[in-house]
Amino acid sequence: MTLSSLSFTLSELSTADVEASEKLYGELAGDIRQVVDVAIRTQVTADRVAAARDLVRQATQILAEDAPPEPAGIQFNAEGRSWNWGNAVVGVRNAIAPPVVLHWDDDATVHSEVDLGVAYEGPPGSVHGGVSALLLDHLMGETASGRHTRLIVTGTLTLRYVHPLPLGRIRMEARITKVDGRKVTVTAHIGPEGGNEPAVEATGLFIIPRWHNEGAVSAEVGSLD
Amino acid sequence: MTLSSLSFTLSELSTADVEASEKLYGELAGDIRQVVDVAIRTQVTADRVAAARDLVRQATQILAEDAPPEPAGIQFNAEGRSWNWGNAVVGVRNAIAPPVVLHWDDDATVHSEVDLGVAYEGPPGSVHGGVSALLLDHLMGETASGRHTRLIVTGTLTLRYVHPLPLGRIRMEARITKVDGRKVTVTAHIGPEGGNEPAVEATGLFIIPRWHNEGAVSAEVGSLD
Repeated sequence: MTLSSLSFTLSELSTADVEASEKLYGELAGDIRQVVDVAIRTQVTADRVAAARDLVRQATQILAEDAPPEPAGIQFNAEGRSWNWGNAVVGVRNAIAPPVVLHWDDDATVHSEVDLGVAYEGPPGSVHGGVSALLLDHLMGETASGRHTRLIVTGTLTLRYVHPLPLGRIRMEARITKVDGRKVTVTAHIGPEGGNEPAVEATGLFIIPRWHNEGAVSAEVGSLD
Repeated sequence: MTLSSLSFTLSELSTADVEASEKLYGELAGDIRQVVDVAIRTQVTADRVAAARDLVRQATQILAEDAPPEPAGIQFNAEGRSWNWGNAVVGVRNAIAPPVVLHWDDDATVHSEVDLGVAYEGPPGSVHGGVSALLLDHLMGETASGRHTRLIVTGTLTLRYVHPLPLGRIRMEARITKVDGRKVTVTAHIGPEGGNEPAVEATGLFIIPRWHNEGAVSAEVGSLD
């Protein structure tokens, strides 16, 4: 595994600035999630579609007035706050992300509940098996980071599909089950919130890169997923 | 694996109607993909964000004038055409989906190229490892279906992360390597288009359900991913 393309940006934003920015652009992403959802379900006629398209394109034009081409990346500030606004799973500015919010039960256990609407469909009425893989990969990577005390990369990920997962509110949980030198093993599962049986079970092997040290970047950044 | 919640809908739409509908609503989804992308990158001020949000909400309102709550599901018509417009990977009406378009090289080999922009980010500048898992899961499930000649469900999926995958144009390929009774093994990889080494390698075990028969639904529908 080489990671030569990685870069983390030290930002001059204060944590208060970061939070104001997350609110401003996060609410925009929330509105966009709504249009993503209804665009899958709508049956309006061609003239109404044209009207909606016109509005969406106008919105794009406004937002493009000042929009550098680069992806959001991972940034951190001197106060120890880090953020990855464009992340496909947790990015608050990314309308593709549900977004997932993680809860740390302890340094080795993380869980999350999130609503998965019609945009996450695979089999009829069910969450796409690959979406479960996407969410678990991210949750497990964060878990392996030990609450962001070490930088890790994913080695292997194994998923066992046991039951279909209906669209709606899901719960997922991951825990570190082994740390052996530079190897961290994490197990996880995802299922309907309140359900007794997991839909998908997963095991992941995460690696602490040789170039890792306990310096500032690794302490702030955690998982690279 | 139980699949009691599955349902497929026989539609009265002709294939010509389906294609007109895909064009109409697919172009809408294309516009929404643009706003998803620019909303991650934009730096416009609060008043411009407010103007854009207002336009997006107006578009949502128009599309909601006639929008049943149900997910898109998988539909098929009497001509043998099937469609899953809301699918998280290939759904042409789903702005979360890139969308992926599959190319069948033969009944056992499928490949696809697709552009992955800033909305698919994980590590800085790279495709989220879980997005690779999402795309490979779908590609491999479709491959296991033998060009939609059998209905299959995912059993296990194993992913090996070898190199980071830069955002941009990617290529992925999958092939059936073994069929043993009801078990179909598929191997796959994903990497930068034109690159020599894969970023992620995968092996999947797919199962032909016991209730499968060679009837009309299975012949049209293929993979449930």
